Amino acid sequence: MVEIERKFLVVDETFKQQAVKQTRIVQGFLTTDPERTVRIRIKGNTGFITIKGKSDAEGLERFEWEKEIASTEAEALLKLCLPGTIDKIRYEVPLEDVVFEIDEFFGANEGLVVAEVELTHKQQKHPVPNWLGKEVTGEVKYYNSQLSKKPFKTW
Amino acid sequence: MVEIERKFLVVDETFKQQAVKQTRIVQGFLTTDPERTVRIRIKGNTGFITIKGKSDAEGLERFEWEKEIASTEAEALLKLCLPGTIDKIRYEVPLEDVVFEIDEFFGANEGLVVAEVELTHKQQKHPVPNWLGKEVTGEVKYYNSQLSKKPFKTW
Repeated sequence: MVEIERKFLVVDETFKQQAVKQTRIVQGFLTTDPERTVRIRIKGNTGFITIKGKSDAEGLERFEWEKEIASTEAEALLKLCLPGTIDKIRYEVPLEDVVFEIDEFFGANEGLVVAEVELTHKQQKHPVPNWLGKEVTGEVKYYNSQLSKKPFKTW
Repeated sequence: MVEIERKFLVVDETFKQQAVKQTRIVQGFLTTDPERTVRIRIKGNTGFITIKGKSDAEGLERFEWEKEIASTEAEALLKLCLPGTIDKIRYEVPLEDVVFEIDEFFGANEGLVVAEVELTHKQQKHPVPNWLGKEVTGEVKYYNSQLSKKPFKTW
């Protein structure tokens, strides 16, 4: 239930040539409190409710609990969410032994492209493709919960 | 997914003689925003996550979504909740065609006893036992989410 993730900016669109899958994601938040975020997500045709806790000091580890729910239920719950729906396409890029998940944002966050890689331990090495930019792991303003309140275009 | 409920104060303990069941409930909140409350509950040995929306003008109807979860998961999520855990015993009192759910609170809400009855339509009549006191339907301060922030003993 604790995830280890690193997050990076993406500097160009060449990752799209390596993507094996792309999925539309629409999500909202019932609370954006970084210590207890509650997210409602529709990913493709499936709904999810996800709760995330506080990050550790390095921003690498974060408690995460997720349950799949019916997309009709997710749609009803999305209506309850705070203003600031997140709309993005997630690309999956497998490289060596990891999978990069790259989010291309639309709407109020258009222009932002972020890559995440999930690791099994903190010191794990991962490939560094040419499109991978500055690391932003643990930077709260890049949390989707914060992007819903203070979108990229307002920065 | 919309519930019709009326809520009343309870004036004495005679309801306990009519109770057919009693269950310990411990619960906390990830957000107490009355428009999108997120509650984590352990009721007996079972966990629940419940999301409630805004009440209608009369305070009778409120959107409610609930999922059963493992009690171990509920325990992990309770640790993420805002300060102000609610601890209570719920008594079930069946009378005629309805069931009153009566909550006797402990801890910071000790002294408060509240009865709820779920109705199938807004005009439905229900029995009025001797122990039933003043109606408090829709009064936000009696929401458990508010009792966790501003408990009864501080009123």
